[in-house]
Amino acid sequence: MRAFLSLAALSVALFLAGCPRQSCPTTAGEASGGAGLAYPRGAGEGMWPLGLLSQLDDEALRTRGLQLPITKLWEEGDGLARAAVKIVNGCSASFVSPDGLIFTNHHCAHSAISRNSTTERNLLEQGFVARTRAEELPGQGTTTIQVLRRFTDVTDRVLADLPEDLEARARAMNQRESSIVAECEGRPNTRCYIGRFLDGIPYEGTPDGRIRCTLFETLEIQDVRVVAAPPESMGSYGGEIDNWHWPRHSNDFSLLRAYVSPAGAPAEYSPDNVPYRPAAYLEVSTEGVGPGDFVMVLGYPWRTTRHLTSVEVAEQRDWYFPLRVNLFSEWSRVLHAQAERSPETAILVSSHIRSIDNSLSHARGRVEAFANVDVLGERQEAETSLGAWIAEETARRDQFGDVLPGIDAAVRDAAATRDRDVILRYMVYGSQLLDFATTIVRWATEQRLPDLEREPGYQNRDQESLRSELEHAQLGLDLETDRAIFLLFLRRVMDLPEGQRIEALDAAVGSDRSPAALEAFAERTYSGSRLGDQASRLALFGQALDALQASDDTMVRLALALAPVQAERERAADVLEQRVAGLRPRLMLAYAQSSSELAYPDATATLRVSFGSVMGYSPLDGVLYTPLTTVSGLVAKDTGEEPFNAPAAVLEAAARSRDGRWVDRPLGDVPACFLSDLDTTGGNSGSPVMDGQGRLVGLLFDGVWEDLAGDVTYSPRLSRSIAVDIRYVLWLLDDVMNADHILAELGVGS
Amino acid sequence: MRAFLSLAALSVALFLAGCPRQSCPTTAGEASGGAGLAYPRGAGEGMWPLGLLSQLDDEALRTRGLQLPITKLWEEGDGLARAAVKIVNGCSASFVSPDGLIFTNHHCAHSAISRNSTTERNLLEQGFVARTRAEELPGQGTTTIQVLRRFTDVTDRVLADLPEDLEARARAMNQRESSIVAECEGRPNTRCYIGRFLDGIPYEGTPDGRIRCTLFETLEIQDVRVVAAPPESMGSYGGEIDNWHWPRHSNDFSLLRAYVSPAGAPAEYSPDNVPYRPAAYLEVSTEGVGPGDFVMVLGYPWRTTRHLTSVEVAEQRDWYFPLRVNLFSEWSRVLHAQAERSPETAILVSSHIRSIDNSLSHARGRVEAFANVDVLGERQEAETSLGAWIAEETARRDQFGDVLPGIDAAVRDAAATRDRDVILRYMVYGSQLLDFATTIVRWATEQRLPDLEREPGYQNRDQESLRSELEHAQLGLDLETDRAIFLLFLRRVMDLPEGQRIEALDAAVGSDRSPAALEAFAERTYSGSRLGDQASRLALFGQALDALQASDDTMVRLALALAPVQAERERAADVLEQRVAGLRPRLMLAYAQSSSELAYPDATATLRVSFGSVMGYSPLDGVLYTPLTTVSGLVAKDTGEEPFNAPAAVLEAAARSRDGRWVDRPLGDVPACFLSDLDTTGGNSGSPVMDGQGRLVGLLFDGVWEDLAGDVTYSPRLSRSIAVDIRYVLWLLDDVMNADHILAELGVGS
Repeated sequence: MRAFLSLAALSVALFLAGCPRQSCPTTAGEASGGAGLAYPRGAGEGMWPLGLLSQLDDEALRTRGLQLPITKLWEEGDGLARAAVKIVNGCSASFVSPDGLIFTNHHCAHSAISRNSTTERNLLEQGFVARTRAEELPGQGTTTIQVLRRFTDVTDRVLADLPEDLEARARAMNQRESSIVAECEGRPNTRCYIGRFLDGIPYEGTPDGRIRCTLFETLEIQDVRVVAAPPESMGSYGGEIDNWHWPRHSNDFSLLRAYVSPAGAPAEYSPDNVPYRPAAYLEVSTEGVGPGDFVMVLGYPWRTTRHLTSVEVAEQRDWYFPLRVNLFSEWSRVLHAQAERSPETAILVSSHIRSIDNSLSHARGRVEAFANVDVLGERQEAETSLGAWIAEETARRDQFGDVLPGIDAAVRDAAATRDRDVILRYMVYGSQLLDFATTIVRWATEQRLPDLEREPGYQNRDQESLRSELEHAQLGLDLETDRAIFLLFLRRVMDLPEGQRIEALDAAVGSDRSPAALEAFAERTYSGSRLGDQASRLALFGQALDALQASDDTMVRLALALAPVQAERERAADVLEQRVAGLRPRLMLAYAQSSSELAYPDATATLRVSFGSVMGYSPLDGVLYTPLTTVSGLVAKDTGEEPFNAPAAVLEAAARSRDGRWVDRPLGDVPACFLSDLDTTGGNSGSPVMDGQGRLVGLLFDGVWEDLAGDVTYSPRLSRSIAVDIRYVLWLLDDVMNADHILAELGVGS
Repeated sequence: MRAFLSLAALSVALFLAGCPRQSCPTTAGEASGGAGLAYPRGAGEGMWPLGLLSQLDDEALRTRGLQLPITKLWEEGDGLARAAVKIVNGCSASFVSPDGLIFTNHHCAHSAISRNSTTERNLLEQGFVARTRAEELPGQGTTTIQVLRRFTDVTDRVLADLPEDLEARARAMNQRESSIVAECEGRPNTRCYIGRFLDGIPYEGTPDGRIRCTLFETLEIQDVRVVAAPPESMGSYGGEIDNWHWPRHSNDFSLLRAYVSPAGAPAEYSPDNVPYRPAAYLEVSTEGVGPGDFVMVLGYPWRTTRHLTSVEVAEQRDWYFPLRVNLFSEWSRVLHAQAERSPETAILVSSHIRSIDNSLSHARGRVEAFANVDVLGERQEAETSLGAWIAEETARRDQFGDVLPGIDAAVRDAAATRDRDVILRYMVYGSQLLDFATTIVRWATEQRLPDLEREPGYQNRDQESLRSELEHAQLGLDLETDRAIFLLFLRRVMDLPEGQRIEALDAAVGSDRSPAALEAFAERTYSGSRLGDQASRLALFGQALDALQASDDTMVRLALALAPVQAERERAADVLEQRVAGLRPRLMLAYAQSSSELAYPDATATLRVSFGSVMGYSPLDGVLYTPLTTVSGLVAKDTGEEPFNAPAAVLEAAARSRDGRWVDRPLGDVPACFLSDLDTTGGNSGSPVMDGQGRLVGLLFDGVWEDLAGDVTYSPRLSRSIAVDIRYVLWLLDDVMNADHILAELGVGS
């Protein structure tokens, strides 16, 4: 999850996670599910939207260790949850002082720290503490945050009187949502988005078997500065080797501060800006937690698909993830070979390699997890029981009889072109030049429609971010590598089976499909394009479609040729989404009615609360992972070589701190990280982990290898989250970074 | 330890373990130490010779869980220890029925099972159960056993009135020992050996600061047959991946039976032979053990060096093991490259590869262990305290003042030619043709002396085993591979520093030492030798030295040329041994006097008892290894692919056995293997692990990775042994192999 969430890799990761659109983490997951499978109670399962908290069993939560009335978290638009922060790069965070101080992960502020680093003053390497407010470093656009103001159910506005035709219906829903968002953003300093929840269970009232649309209204703050960060050797201690794994010793924290104009409104960076005063902030605990202790987490998990049917699970298990392993393996090999060319190329492609390797590792882990956790069998069993329950009464048969067969038919229909669709999707991501061209052509195409009728992502509100992407992409662009990736996809396109051919590419390549001919085609396409040049690229962005059609840029011409098949793919995806949207909420309703359990909707990058306990797990027979690691463990693990190279000052402090203030008495050592059964996923990075009193005790930053099927099914046995113990953070701030003023602001000064 | 002990690899492993002579496992370790460092009480430390048992604190052992008077183990030549069996291939074992039935590890009977296998009837692969006595399979010379009859202190006979000159002294000691052994073997059916213990603490009487020589008299039985063995996929489940590691699921057992002539005397295999009736045998427990339970082990650990000085430890840590890692890495690369040549070559060199890779892995583990366990610091600290204690009184200074400086000087002197000595030693092992030639030349050289004055290993009693080795070596001989290894060593010899040159080789190679010239030299040496041919080789063995000197065989000529430098190396080693033998017993005595702790001598392949408890350990921060694994763990680990490919019948039985007879109630499953803090090392493979009542509860078969410094220092935190739980064995015999008759013979029939 760590690297999976790193800023540089974010858009990559989202894409590779299977999100069909770039908007995936900030709007509802198109393929997301609903709610309702009966799960064991007491374990940490459940990512609860604020609107469902009031329906939870307060008494049961108290028994488990919650020491606050649940209404303290959220009631009538107020509560501790107002301390929650969403970083638009995909992370979570929290306010921890009245002056807008924010705790998140180090990897969530990686770009901000990096942009403030130079070879002479490498803050990424050395770490950083601002000694005064004036020293706090501007985030330079990397750490824009959103603070939730309110949310409203807009289901009726979106769903009323939709046309029968599924394509028209998809279009109508998009347009209505665009209007609602535009209306919402008409208010000052407001950024809005709609979450679609396919669970058929509204926050209030009775389940109605429809999807639910919720409008989230946020305050967006752009001026967010870096206050403190550990050296990267601590922030990502263990690197890719430890990533996804326990035991862990990363001190993955950073401190940011939100600034607004003197008038209190969000504003671009200015030295005149003043700290933002949040409606709520979390108290920091110095008492910590131990094995068995109650914990809860507030954050923005991107996406889970806990309510797939067995046929959908089989598709993931037997086709999709094996394909990802295969594709990413080759992709990785190509990138590593390119990196061998020169040290400069190695640097240019390093972030790309990191993303692909992380996605490869994730895909492998998922394949392994599917072998270890029998999700398919579990789903088949649940469906058998549900089928029996439905068959019992005529009314149930009428209401639910078509649901499972209907979803399965949709999956089968989509499978007809699944290989082509995946390749098309990844090819545009893989070749940056093709991506540029596709964006430029798509923008021009959408421009012909009225703003609110355009596809989300191509409306006027998106213009600036698209331009900025086209501009900044230059930083990681290596044309020879890009062409090698293009060629990789070209070969795969040529290997597509009959019935899934991409005719535009077949025609462009011609009849000779020998390796040499494909290489020559890639060479021609790249040498005939000016999109590798930043200025030429930006000059093309915004040109009208007919101007583009007259262009002789080979990559623009290819994008134009591919546009129809891509449009067809999107239309088909929209129709598929509509088919499922008409079915899955009823599936969830059937599960809920048959088991009478309160259910939670899938994660869709909206604010959630999970409840759990500090606990280890057994990753395999004969081995137990204990729930807390220690600073002594860091020292024992240290080899002096990256990624196990803690700074000398840290090792020295470790030797000094054996009986200092930050020692956990039962542990006899300064704690480092802890495990819990909290239900989290990508997007939860940086989330505050709180004790039963709502005090901050840790920062969530990773999941575990054995839980890589966790997005599809929560396992009480294996679903674990990893957090930095806040005492590890405070120890570093205190004994190594000498940040007394920060401890004082956090209310834990000695 | 498992592969480290496999029969095929045994002589290799002994050699590579650093034994300076082939006789290393059956006589005292020349470099072994004494006794006396003060160790924590209560942990499993200590490999106790039978003669020291009566001096142990009986009461303390009872508190720890021993439920027998210690005299039941051994008193006046009798006791449970008479059930202990030494397999001359280097393993341990035990009698478990009045009819000579023997339990040992699968890997200890590997060769015996292998020799009884054919491609049509592959018993190694399929496993085997003799349904009648007649079906029991002859061991064909692979599993000769020795049963201890008695031992006698012969220190005075060996040490009385030795000459002052160290070389003469070494010769005199060897000759006296040879006479004593010859006298002992004059008794019928008797095989004898002398163990030298450098601990200065005799079994009885007061410490005298001399080395101790003990004569062991055994009954040697050649006709030992295979009664039952699991499929290799169970016996070495987990293969090289799991080797040395926890968690473990190998069912590493086999059952043998000792046969003697109808008159009760040892005899070659004959269908007329009858089962041997041992003086004692172990009862098999069906109750098993759980965490914390007392256990003890009886066996023949080869060699520990627990009493090295800090200078010797530094030599191991900083020179010897890093050199082994370097050498074995290259050796392994050469072998793997050879194996690529053809499937036939791959089979021929597989056992060689396995040995070298295992030794490489062991050396790497040792380097890692030296980094994790600060043996050097511990020794330096102990020496500082000892130095202070010695300095306190004049008498102590007189008695012990020269000891530490003396040993350190010996180490320094040996270091002057250490690189040359190691290369010479390994080169003769690495090139089989050179090994043959060296043996033939050495035999001829020693023949000129009266039998008992010859070097041990080259006396009349050794002739048959030497001839047999020369004969059977053909099975694993691949001349091209052998030449490649020879070349590897040739290059290393050419890289030796000034002062350590091997002139005979320098002269033979000539002035051109280019890679091509070295290759040509290797080519000439191999093509000019007939030693690759079995008959020619055997014809040369036994020829007189002058006949050999007249031979034109290039490899014989090379061995003749190398003989003087090898003799010089051996003389120097003898002198060194004598220097240390005059010092280390006094060092141990000083430690014993300064701490007043009862000490145990280093392991020297003689019968020992260790006491401990079933317990797990923490290999690193955040991870706990729990002490018992289960059959469910085996199933979870199984991938269907080697080495994690349990037979279908085992997996089916696992599913059936969840509430069967062999389930451990607290565990809720059939147990597989267990960890304990018993003090063991190579040679203990196959050792019976017993409960407090002396009943068999497991078969020891491996150590753990984190304890690879265990031969040098016992760590209560990390020293752990791995045993097969006997219930795992019984379950397999019962539920998979349907061996009711064996369960009945073991007294555990249902």
